[in-house]
Amino acid sequence: MVRPRSGDKDQALVDAAISLFLEKGVKGTTVQDIAKKAGLAVGTVYTYFKDKGEIVRRVAFAFAERHHAFAKEILESRKKPLSKLNAYLLGFYDMWQPFGENQKGPMELAEAVFRWAPETPEIAEREFLNTLEAILKEAKQEGARIDRPEEEARWIAISTASFFPLAGTPFKRPMGESYSREDLKGLLTWLGRKLSG
Amino acid sequence: MVRPRSGDKDQALVDAAISLFLEKGVKGTTVQDIAKKAGLAVGTVYTYFKDKGEIVRRVAFAFAERHHAFAKEILESRKKPLSKLNAYLLGFYDMWQPFGENQKGPMELAEAVFRWAPETPEIAEREFLNTLEAILKEAKQEGARIDRPEEEARWIAISTASFFPLAGTPFKRPMGESYSREDLKGLLTWLGRKLSG
Repeated sequence: MVRPRSGDKDQALVDAAISLFLEKGVKGTTVQDIAKKAGLAVGTVYTYFKDKGEIVRRVAFAFAERHHAFAKEILESRKKPLSKLNAYLLGFYDMWQPFGENQKGPMELAEAVFRWAPETPEIAEREFLNTLEAILKEAKQEGARIDRPEEEARWIAISTASFFPLAGTPFKRPMGESYSREDLKGLLTWLGRKLSG
Repeated sequence: MVRPRSGDKDQALVDAAISLFLEKGVKGTTVQDIAKKAGLAVGTVYTYFKDKGEIVRRVAFAFAERHHAFAKEILESRKKPLSKLNAYLLGFYDMWQPFGENQKGPMELAEAVFRWAPETPEIAEREFLNTLEAILKEAKQEGARIDRPEEEARWIAISTASFFPLAGTPFKRPMGESYSREDLKGLLTWLGRKLSG
């Protein structure tokens, strides 16, 4: 057992929980499993979290923090606004991709998040729309064909919604081929051309 | 019992089947129910269709015919191309809307269509893309910002995919509010502005 330094314990627990929840599902993962994987005694885990539900909450907020950090990184990068749009949406796709594949682990985790951290999906949606809006504002300033960034952020969210199933909606389409990451890239290139000044 | 004229029997049967399938589900509807609603003897129904599966096939092709007739009507109308785009997509939404509401009848019918008429979803997708392409070609000729109608038809199909769940995918989004017909109108207005020359 590798014992992480005390300050890293919370992080080690969250990482262990995410990887086990995704692999084995929330139901199939015990607090013991998480402790073992994080290299901690079960008793130590219980000093951080009173039960599995609290671990799920922590995981949900860890996702929200990652999303926020990623959005911030994109916004502060030196890319051009329409490249930020692409980078953000493709990165968001990659971040949520496991949750769209209709597999047991991710689906159970999504359900557990809706149960134990029901406020986080809305946080994710807000972050998503705010980031799009901030990017579109920049694009507008640089002369893109954008009139109302806030409103147009929502249209972009809706036009790309099929790529962000989140929380258990399967990527698999009932008819025709499923959409791929390449399709998202193509769609973004097309939207980018329409938005260019 | 109102006995329709012989030439109308097929139509009466299809109409009766659609309305019963949507209301009571495919499993909950018997050939007897359909005969009664169509005002025909059960024996007569069996001269048209050998079983319920064949009725489902006929219903699926009736939907395909309606879709084709509707697409043709839009294409041949005197509207401007971008108005055709709006009218077609909103009409398509209305046509498929019952199938997105996660209700028993429409979901069972969608499943039955996938089983008994598995070629029809692809027919619907082809018709959809061909219609969009034809409209975009016209729009291009009239000076819209469209380069490759065939390719761009697909991007429009993907950007509006969340409104056409087809075959049992629920409209209900796992997070945030569900999209409405008003959202589709808004999205189309926005796309229309971006496509205008």
